[in-house]
Amino acid sequence: MKPAIVMQSDFGTDSGLVSCMHGICKIVDQELQIYDITHILPAFDIEAASFCLQYTVPCWPEGTVFVSVVDPGVGTERRASVAKLKNGSYVVSPDNGTFTYSFYMIGIEEIREIDEAVNRYPKTKEISVFHGRDLFSYCAARLASGQITFEEVGSSYPLEEIVLHKIYSSDKKSGCVEGSIVWFDPFGSAGTSIKNADLAQCGFTIGDKMAVKIYDKSELMLEGIIPYEKSFGYVEKGKEVLFNGLTSFATIAINEGSFADQHHMERDKIYQIRIEKV
Amino acid sequence: MKPAIVMQSDFGTDSGLVSCMHGICKIVDQELQIYDITHILPAFDIEAASFCLQYTVPCWPEGTVFVSVVDPGVGTERRASVAKLKNGSYVVSPDNGTFTYSFYMIGIEEIREIDEAVNRYPKTKEISVFHGRDLFSYCAARLASGQITFEEVGSSYPLEEIVLHKIYSSDKKSGCVEGSIVWFDPFGSAGTSIKNADLAQCGFTIGDKMAVKIYDKSELMLEGIIPYEKSFGYVEKGKEVLFNGLTSFATIAINEGSFADQHHMERDKIYQIRIEKV
Amino acid sequence: MKPAIVMQSDFGTDSGLVSCMHGICKIVDQELQIYDITHILPAFDIEAASFCLQYTVPCWPEGTVFVSVVDPGVGTERRASVAKLKNGSYVVSPDNGTFTYSFYMIGIEEIREIDEAVNRYPKTKEISVFHGRDLFSYCAARLASGQITFEEVGSSYPLEEIVLHKIYSSDKKSGCVEGSIVWFDPFGSAGTSIKNADLAQCGFTIGDKMAVKIYDKSELMLEGIIPYEKSFGYVEKGKEVLFNGLTSFATIAINEGSFADQHHMERDKIYQIRIEKV
Repeated sequence: MKPAIVMQSDFGTDSGLVSCMHGICKIVDQELQIYDITHILPAFDIEAASFCLQYTVPCWPEGTVFVSVVDPGVGTERRASVAKLKNGSYVVSPDNGTFTYSFYMIGIEEIREIDEAVNRYPKTKEISVFHGRDLFSYCAARLASGQITFEEVGSSYPLEEIVLHKIYSSDKKSGCVEGSIVWFDPFGSAGTSIKNADLAQCGFTIGDKMAVKIYDKSELMLEGIIPYEKSFGYVEKGKEVLFNGLTSFATIAINEGSFADQHHMERDKIYQIRIEKV
Repeated sequence: MKPAIVMQSDFGTDSGLVSCMHGICKIVDQELQIYDITHILPAFDIEAASFCLQYTVPCWPEGTVFVSVVDPGVGTERRASVAKLKNGSYVVSPDNGTFTYSFYMIGIEEIREIDEAVNRYPKTKEISVFHGRDLFSYCAARLASGQITFEEVGSSYPLEEIVLHKIYSSDKKSGCVEGSIVWFDPFGSAGTSIKNADLAQCGFTIGDKMAVKIYDKSELMLEGIIPYEKSFGYVEKGKEVLFNGLTSFATIAINEGSFADQHHMERDKIYQIRIEKV
Repeated sequence: MKPAIVMQSDFGTDSGLVSCMHGICKIVDQELQIYDITHILPAFDIEAASFCLQYTVPCWPEGTVFVSVVDPGVGTERRASVAKLKNGSYVVSPDNGTFTYSFYMIGIEEIREIDEAVNRYPKTKEISVFHGRDLFSYCAARLASGQITFEEVGSSYPLEEIVLHKIYSSDKKSGCVEGSIVWFDPFGSAGTSIKNADLAQCGFTIGDKMAVKIYDKSELMLEGIIPYEKSFGYVEKGKEVLFNGLTSFATIAINEGSFADQHHMERDKIYQIRIEKV
């Protein structure tokens, strides 16, 4: 069974662009199965693309070929690359920061620049604008179908040359951890930069009461005692809760509510958070 | 050929959550094909999930495995179950009301609670929040792939214990039927709680003129003579029409228009309707 | 390997309608693979459906069966048809103008009206409203699975009888071309009615500076010197650029910006454009 191709982009879902990428894969090999992560990543938002891959990739079988096309620099000098991850899957993407979270959280074993001379769809040479289709999807399909090996993608280059965006870190002490709120999920829950594993390392256990402070820049905007539970369902409807998030990062939510809306938090803003055991 | 897995949820389409559910199915068995109903069900709206399954399930082959994840109580005491429907298909869902329309309109042959000890994805034990992936999708994939039989899902329990939400009924008399408007389709057409079959049983036939009255609570808000036709295309553009809806329920629409918008009806409100043969 | 079925409609993605169409194909033949272009075409917008097919169809393998359901006249006298395109693929659609761009840009080899007596899903005769499922998807699945040949779709009719909507043309002179802006892509880039090939025929080459004038009706609303480049990535962020569009039509964009928003252009309006070599 050939590995699936799994795509994400900022192309939106109201045009034929995504389907053009699907179709090119089928032109390469009709047996390939194509799935999608999302195509409504915020336009040009490389960090969102990078983060979304981080928690989606590990849910697919080893060998899956991911295609990520958030590519403000399409047609210019940025590298078009394929990363082989340490979990055995591949990510095909412009090397513009999209590999960042995969690099830190999953690990990259090797990276190769796509050789356009052999791995670019030959029929559309007069159009330079649709690398999502002609370069990334086409090369991914050749790799997934076994028409080329990873080595035949193109030349490898040092991992140090991978473009990395800034990621928000966390600062652990005994009984206390600080970090940022960097993401809101579809239900308005607040995803932090604090790894699930950090909570355990700080000595927090399920059932603990946590003193949580959230800052907008340096200004304290929210303060309260929030329980650390297995899931939001372990608190009453409307109550706040801290839990191990599915993205591998600690998350704060309101059971059957939106933490973001409740506290008038803006979804594209970064907040600071401090969690201390009571 | 293994049956398809067909999913719905309220997870939205702007994150990787749905793809995580797809991927886990592929980890169970790469041969499985996964399709989606919708993932933008209104958040926490169990009745919407229940209704959507009702008219979608019969359009798929016998044996199809549906996964429905609208689960305000994730991680708590509600049962996680698999229902075997009388048409031979399966629905994997929290037993929180989602089975209601399937129970009344298709019929449930048997229901079993998922045994987490064997049918929960073992790798993510420290995360309790993503039952859509770790429990529902994983168990559905094992069932669809033939790794477990329906009996091996877990213990069966009496059909009387299935959680049912209230459904809107209809009241038939000769030449007259009363019910509710409970749903607006994507074009703004008004779906009622009156079954298509009820119309025939009341003695209505295609071509009849119907006196229709719509009430907001007890107040008459709309009154008119509306033809009962095979489809909205049988009346002029902009005219109103009653027809047998694809959801199995009688529907009122405006040809090439939105009945909801035309009459300033709110999409999440329930209206009363009375249809009488002129 | 059986050809894929690829669907588009104006049904939206918030209900089970699209999944009902998928399911019927699987009832016909479980081996069929089904993909989607988009289901959020503007409601009743036949020209959008026609245009979207034009640039998507050539990206899929020969023999692919496309289903397009934008069908304001569902259930009435318009023909339900299957067109065999000159590139070997099929389009299943109401003959209401949807075939227009395929006719002009790809070419139609033969067209046949679907014989409802044999190619309509027999189980739902009492519902006339869902031809997308019962007629178009069902017939497409029979064709894709090989249960019927193209000849068995139904009777052929003269190509001259195909319903064509008006399309915007372009007017080429040496060193100058005039046309319309007819489409905005998901990023707000302006798609014109000027074919990529027209630019070359007018003697324009990559690197040229172009004097561009855009008119709202007869009023000049925008004037400037815009470079003709391979892609938007070849100009600085925020700068305007003309390039060969992926839809086969010349496109004007702002690198990492929205041309539509920048110039307050309405997405459903038609503008006139004149491009002259400086």
